Amino acid sequence: MKRTLGTCYYPEHWSRDIWEDDARRMVEAGLTWVRIGEFAWSRLEPSPGQYRFDWLDDAIEVLGRAGLRVVLGTPTATPPRWMLDRHPDMLARDAEGHPRKFGSRRHYCFSHEGYARECDLIVTRLAERYGQNPHVAAWQTDNEYGCHDTILSYSNAARQAFRNWLRTRYAGDGNDGDIDALNAAWGNVFWSMEYDSFDQIDLPNLTVTEPNPSHLLDFRRFSSDQVVRFNRRQVDILRGYSTAPIAHNYMGRITDFDHFRVGDDLEIASWDSYPLGFLEDRIDAPSEHKRRYARQGDPDFQALHHDLYRAVGRGRWWVMEQQPGPVNWAPYNPDPLPGMVRLWSWEAFAHGAEAVCYFRWRQAPMAQEMMHAGMLRPDSAPAPALAEARQVADELAQAPDVTPVQADVGLFFDYESDWAWSIQPHGAGLSYFDLVLDTYRALRKLGLSIDILRPGADLTGYRMICVPGQMILSDEDKAALAACGAEVVIGPRTAARSADMQTPVPLPPAMPGLDVTVARVESLRPDMPIASDGGHITGYRDVIETTLTDLTRASDGSIVTARSHQITYLAAWLDQPALIRVMEGIAKRAGLDTITLPEGVRRRRTATEVFWFNHDTTEHEVAGQRLAPLAVLRQPIA
Amino acid sequence: MKRTLGTCYYPEHWSRDIWEDDARRMVEAGLTWVRIGEFAWSRLEPSPGQYRFDWLDDAIEVLGRAGLRVVLGTPTATPPRWMLDRHPDMLARDAEGHPRKFGSRRHYCFSHEGYARECDLIVTRLAERYGQNPHVAAWQTDNEYGCHDTILSYSNAARQAFRNWLRTRYAGDGNDGDIDALNAAWGNVFWSMEYDSFDQIDLPNLTVTEPNPSHLLDFRRFSSDQVVRFNRRQVDILRGYSTAPIAHNYMGRITDFDHFRVGDDLEIASWDSYPLGFLEDRIDAPSEHKRRYARQGDPDFQALHHDLYRAVGRGRWWVMEQQPGPVNWAPYNPDPLPGMVRLWSWEAFAHGAEAVCYFRWRQAPMAQEMMHAGMLRPDSAPAPALAEARQVADELAQAPDVTPVQADVGLFFDYESDWAWSIQPHGAGLSYFDLVLDTYRALRKLGLSIDILRPGADLTGYRMICVPGQMILSDEDKAALAACGAEVVIGPRTAARSADMQTPVPLPPAMPGLDVTVARVESLRPDMPIASDGGHITGYRDVIETTLTDLTRASDGSIVTARSHQITYLAAWLDQPALIRVMEGIAKRAGLDTITLPEGVRRRRTATEVFWFNHDTTEHEVAGQRLAPLAVLRQPIA
Amino acid sequence: MKRTLGTCYYPEHWSRDIWEDDARRMVEAGLTWVRIGEFAWSRLEPSPGQYRFDWLDDAIEVLGRAGLRVVLGTPTATPPRWMLDRHPDMLARDAEGHPRKFGSRRHYCFSHEGYARECDLIVTRLAERYGQNPHVAAWQTDNEYGCHDTILSYSNAARQAFRNWLRTRYAGDGNDGDIDALNAAWGNVFWSMEYDSFDQIDLPNLTVTEPNPSHLLDFRRFSSDQVVRFNRRQVDILRGYSTAPIAHNYMGRITDFDHFRVGDDLEIASWDSYPLGFLEDRIDAPSEHKRRYARQGDPDFQALHHDLYRAVGRGRWWVMEQQPGPVNWAPYNPDPLPGMVRLWSWEAFAHGAEAVCYFRWRQAPMAQEMMHAGMLRPDSAPAPALAEARQVADELAQAPDVTPVQADVGLFFDYESDWAWSIQPHGAGLSYFDLVLDTYRALRKLGLSIDILRPGADLTGYRMICVPGQMILSDEDKAALAACGAEVVIGPRTAARSADMQTPVPLPPAMPGLDVTVARVESLRPDMPIASDGGHITGYRDVIETTLTDLTRASDGSIVTARSHQITYLAAWLDQPALIRVMEGIAKRAGLDTITLPEGVRRRRTATEVFWFNHDTTEHEVAGQRLAPLAVLRQPIA
Repeated sequence: MKRTLGTCYYPEHWSRDIWEDDARRMVEAGLTWVRIGEFAWSRLEPSPGQYRFDWLDDAIEVLGRAGLRVVLGTPTATPPRWMLDRHPDMLARDAEGHPRKFGSRRHYCFSHEGYARECDLIVTRLAERYGQNPHVAAWQTDNEYGCHDTILSYSNAARQAFRNWLRTRYAGDGNDGDIDALNAAWGNVFWSMEYDSFDQIDLPNLTVTEPNPSHLLDFRRFSSDQVVRFNRRQVDILRGYSTAPIAHNYMGRITDFDHFRVGDDLEIASWDSYPLGFLEDRIDAPSEHKRRYARQGDPDFQALHHDLYRAVGRGRWWVMEQQPGPVNWAPYNPDPLPGMVRLWSWEAFAHGAEAVCYFRWRQAPMAQEMMHAGMLRPDSAPAPALAEARQVADELAQAPDVTPVQADVGLFFDYESDWAWSIQPHGAGLSYFDLVLDTYRALRKLGLSIDILRPGADLTGYRMICVPGQMILSDEDKAALAACGAEVVIGPRTAARSADMQTPVPLPPAMPGLDVTVARVESLRPDMPIASDGGHITGYRDVIETTLTDLTRASDGSIVTARSHQITYLAAWLDQPALIRVMEGIAKRAGLDTITLPEGVRRRRTATEVFWFNHDTTEHEVAGQRLAPLAVLRQPIA
Repeated sequence: MKRTLGTCYYPEHWSRDIWEDDARRMVEAGLTWVRIGEFAWSRLEPSPGQYRFDWLDDAIEVLGRAGLRVVLGTPTATPPRWMLDRHPDMLARDAEGHPRKFGSRRHYCFSHEGYARECDLIVTRLAERYGQNPHVAAWQTDNEYGCHDTILSYSNAARQAFRNWLRTRYAGDGNDGDIDALNAAWGNVFWSMEYDSFDQIDLPNLTVTEPNPSHLLDFRRFSSDQVVRFNRRQVDILRGYSTAPIAHNYMGRITDFDHFRVGDDLEIASWDSYPLGFLEDRIDAPSEHKRRYARQGDPDFQALHHDLYRAVGRGRWWVMEQQPGPVNWAPYNPDPLPGMVRLWSWEAFAHGAEAVCYFRWRQAPMAQEMMHAGMLRPDSAPAPALAEARQVADELAQAPDVTPVQADVGLFFDYESDWAWSIQPHGAGLSYFDLVLDTYRALRKLGLSIDILRPGADLTGYRMICVPGQMILSDEDKAALAACGAEVVIGPRTAARSADMQTPVPLPPAMPGLDVTVARVESLRPDMPIASDGGHITGYRDVIETTLTDLTRASDGSIVTARSHQITYLAAWLDQPALIRVMEGIAKRAGLDTITLPEGVRRRRTATEVFWFNHDTTEHEVAGQRLAPLAVLRQPIA
Repeated sequence: MKRTLGTCYYPEHWSRDIWEDDARRMVEAGLTWVRIGEFAWSRLEPSPGQYRFDWLDDAIEVLGRAGLRVVLGTPTATPPRWMLDRHPDMLARDAEGHPRKFGSRRHYCFSHEGYARECDLIVTRLAERYGQNPHVAAWQTDNEYGCHDTILSYSNAARQAFRNWLRTRYAGDGNDGDIDALNAAWGNVFWSMEYDSFDQIDLPNLTVTEPNPSHLLDFRRFSSDQVVRFNRRQVDILRGYSTAPIAHNYMGRITDFDHFRVGDDLEIASWDSYPLGFLEDRIDAPSEHKRRYARQGDPDFQALHHDLYRAVGRGRWWVMEQQPGPVNWAPYNPDPLPGMVRLWSWEAFAHGAEAVCYFRWRQAPMAQEMMHAGMLRPDSAPAPALAEARQVADELAQAPDVTPVQADVGLFFDYESDWAWSIQPHGAGLSYFDLVLDTYRALRKLGLSIDILRPGADLTGYRMICVPGQMILSDEDKAALAACGAEVVIGPRTAARSADMQTPVPLPPAMPGLDVTVARVESLRPDMPIASDGGHITGYRDVIETTLTDLTRASDGSIVTARSHQITYLAAWLDQPALIRVMEGIAKRAGLDTITLPEGVRRRRTATEVFWFNHDTTEHEVAGQRLAPLAVLRQPIA
């Protein structure tokens, strides 16, 4: 298939006079897609029930006639002000009970049925009107679920919905749930936390000290399910009127809901990629690393998301918003180096993206995002991204198609385990996402290509599978891992909790065929690393008991890895040097082709090519070839 | 004119038995002024409508008879407890909605009309009784507007007043404001934030993510206007009964309201100068700088305020409260070095202060400020400040008068731009005030004397004018700067926003006669300085386009300054070494006499003298003369 | 007497099937005591007035029959969920006014009379049923008063109770208190804070700036008194039915209520000792110190508490909960080094503990504390603590009894002064507790054994007494210190406030026979230490005036110590090297045997022995003997 480019456009922000010129310039820039509509509710329905589609009709017509394909967004992330008059209690509440008020965006509680019905109405009207429009080639539901910490709500609506959700989860013989089952699952005998009825259960905020972790995990599951349900309502409506594929644009490192389950209802996964913003705002890394990559972004963070959304989209995924220049929302917002917009675009394609859309066409002169760059400046002059996009379009036109292929290495990623870690990190700052990113980074530094695997994934064809820190691992997945024939690395902390967020007995990991027991665990001050082969244990380790003899140990004698047949238990959170050493050994056993990559260089295999990317500002030589700073190199596989 | 000294006294805190002795000792110490009354409401009106002026009559009589001149404060910063019973909703609300309760001071919302009427009453009674009193030689309104973050209130009274203020600002043909004008000015089409009526507009707190910056800026303007209005009511009443000059005592680095506009209603500007507290609490400086000046205070912070209030007071200004020893409110509260009270006093006079009053006469043995030093200890023994004040009084008596003169250099300061920066700093920790202070400091290190210029100021007579970071710059000021004949330095970030807080098109700075366009901007991590002539760019820069050829560039090739005729655009926030280099070059072009001053040494010109101050604990030699540690040296101009 | 061991057990958490085996294994481990019941209210009273004691009867019987002695806890720290339905307003409120909700523990306000009556009922029923039970050998009231910041409540119940408490404290002739007396005591004339009636007085939260310190101190006293009152109600009930001794288990470094006054109503003081959690969470120490002792705990923190609770219990004290392995609640939770459970146990005995109980018997597989180690793992296999406890039991059986003796050195500790420091620290981070710990540590490093002295303590027999930072020191204690014949060290900041939290005149310390006046004080940045004999002044000093000549001075000439007869005023907060130098000199004058101990080594004298403890991982030689890492050495006194 042919990879394509696009942009995000807000016709309602600009005079109708310039729409045609904008459309023409988009086509000239080599763009195929234009996403519109996702924040325009106040212009689509200026007052309740009074719809104004004329301007959107025109905009779609202008864009489509110019040769562009439209992605039409539902506007439910930005309900107009009048919605508050109709549903004063629709706002989410923060953990302190404050309403999260009108005046920006995402000001709604996923559990508010009145608001959900309003969304049904506007989505229905859009689907009716544009479901068969020839220019509308795809849909987007809402915008960036979870952005601005909007999944967890402590409103009355959420409280009532949570109680009902619990009644279903802990269903008894009757219709009203089995409160004893809940008390048992949560271990509520502890500290006399037992409930007599579901109506006594509150949301887990403002407790005197930490709430019951099982209470918290169920609240996290419930909150995620509310997003799935909210999204599905829109999908069900759109499907009634349109056969165009439906996407949602996920935001980077937002793990508050299960993207796999939302994705199950969609044809396309997409995400919004802001490499510089993420480096400053969402990556826990030494300041030296942040300084080095301040104008390029982290070399692995975007790639991990690319691979994640390829899994979420079951192969079909886009970058719906690609950073084109400085953004406005990170602690520091530097200019990307010239060439990075192109590199980011190609990296997405190398990982299988169908399309890369730049956010946004023209920088806004007003409101919250006026310091967010676009492809054009506010005065309509070209911004640097425009030429880089044009270059990518040219290269796409000239070069062979990108043909994705299953990777040799699988890496599990599980949203529930991320919640479990955040509920019980054990040590300050420890996070499941960081552990997965560290693992991914170590594998990438060995030149490996990786598929992200969700719980329950088909393991066929993988030669090496890593399951780091997946606190909740089903018996089915344990059996599949034991039987899959790949080299498997599990741990640390994998299978540490039951589905009820209790410590399982027999103790973890209770992996079939692996005589390893985690006797206890410890978290460590950042300033007390423990030397281990080539590097250090940092932050966390499992203390294990085993009769196995294929072991490696840290300098203090503690077991770091224990191996039985093709399963390796990794008992510690290792820094990169030590982790690379461990992963390299296992990759070699799996017969994989590893390589030691220079700083900032990464490679990615497709069915027919090897892509090389140099994120560094220094030229590097690797595998006999020179990689200029910020180079993108495509090498056919012989 | 003869410069004078004074002190702040609370007769209500002490037995009437010691008033006469206190008055006698004040006169012996060389003091002229005694400020009283500003926190005494509970003694002036112990219950609603029951006034007790007898004690104040006596106190004024005792002090006046001893030869002192009284500054009488209105007590509106400390409404008594009974006021709450009458106006339970008079309290301000913080951004989270919590009431800011009784039990300290400043517990009122500027928008509460009921409280404002109570203030009218007590001010009227004071004015009636003391308006013609021969000892009452000046008035002070309220106390330290804005101290303790009291300008922004999120109360119901504030919400209603804000809506009315907006109706006036966006006035339509009718009487109720033009909501479309507001929607356009704020760019509310963005994120569907459009309003149907003014009654839908809320205060900009507790939004899901950042509120619209135009919404914020208007709220800041409104909040400032409420202070102006509150102050003016008192002034209007006092003027009906008294011809004595009226002052307000502003607090250091409080920029939440427009001091120029409050000052327009007053005869005298005054401020409260706490050099050691400010250094610890209100200056963003490296710890090495804070350690070096921990017992002296920052060498430029006070001087900047002196020059600011000279502008606010249109030449007439005081230090109403001068730190006399350790204070109680900073993170650390060290003892000043012996000699600093004298140095601070002389520095104020050198900048044109009419009077310096020490806060307070005797250290209180009770309540919140019992750890705040006075001129006397709580046991009435002399504290170190007493002798230093006496020395200053002697020196004033012996030395020639200080004769202020217009400076060669003008430096713009604009409260709206400070609000605009705080709304959109772009990079963490960036602040307009700091940029102005950095600029002021660089000019001072070159030995220059400076006038602070408000927007719209008359530019006649200046040979060099700096306009750093003034995000909102009127077309009139642009024209005046272009025409004034002085060397003008504008930027970085100057003229970056319209009055509506939008990005202007054509892009900034859009300065007549200067072919410079800010194509985009970037903020930088503190650990990634960019080398530039003699120093570094730190934190922020504009990326500019220009056809000009009189340029300087940083090590990475980016343009740092672009010059056309007498206007220089400075595109980056520079550290002191680089900024001094730029300023020195321009000052030389302006024909100014610059000098490289040693650490901690500053000079200040008057019409007849040069004052030298050594804030350092090391002796320095400068211009052929020795400056002992903490020296104050007056040198007649030949 | 014979020292004993025990554990904490939750029969309600486990199947009745394993109780007998658990009991047998406890006895085999050498345990004497088993504490039960303190969180079991939901099982004892599953619904209001419906009691279920059968299971507790059985548990006590099983445990008792196995040879264990039961400590029975009242369950009032964990009211069941139904309690909230009966008393919706029983929750404490935090300083922002948020309710502190159900879902963990300690969710009650000490001032809520309705809840207090419910406590009366359950305690009465427990006392009736088990008061004469032969296996119930001791009682525990509630659990860890003050844990999770639960002493200060800003609820309506607290507000009303505070007003009544003030009416009593400031009692006039009538029945309703003398508001003028309160206004005078608080100095409310300051800032017009005067009240007309007690009903106007609010709790000191949410004020615009800091509240009146006298208001705060009275609120702290009131809050402490509410705990004393709450505890006494339980004690009074239990005493009606049982002669067994009553204890409470205090938590480390919780100073929000007066433990001495609670202890006056109890036979036994006990505390919960978590050395590793405390090191990370509750000690302000350099990271190097924390790294060094991350697996051993601070060498002095536990000992200080041991000595404190020996004073609180008037000689009778226990460790009710001893850390047995990693805990769950500190920022980092490492594994203790092998041998530390034994060392901690012996250190407690060396300081006179009657019993040491390990928390808890078996690690819970569920709920908040599932990551808190026990003597058994969740799968009932032995955890490392089990064998160490068994070793201690064996050693107790073989070795001679520990015979406590009065120490040579007394160290004052006063809860009111801790509150006074927290109200007016003067410098960021300064704390009374830290000053006492620093003093205790310096004395310990000199090999001294110490008794903690409460205000009003009998000073007979001490040869050296230290009174650091005791801001509120009664005239009686001043007189006793002056007359006691010991070497006395007072200061810095001792006697700085009156009982009303005012600055006394004559100025502090106003110590009989000591011509020292604190003229003023200063707090210092941490990066500006002032060299003083062998070390430095850090953070704080008194500037004193004196005619005494037996002085020591810092490098800047300021007086550090001033001595008159046997009283030394210490005017500065010294670091350890300087403080040890001062204390060593005074100890020698007192004729005490000091020694320079190696890193981590401490000694403790009893009547018959010297105990040596090596907290370090390095072997040290001291007094001619080798101390292996983590060694415990008992040396008979010749």
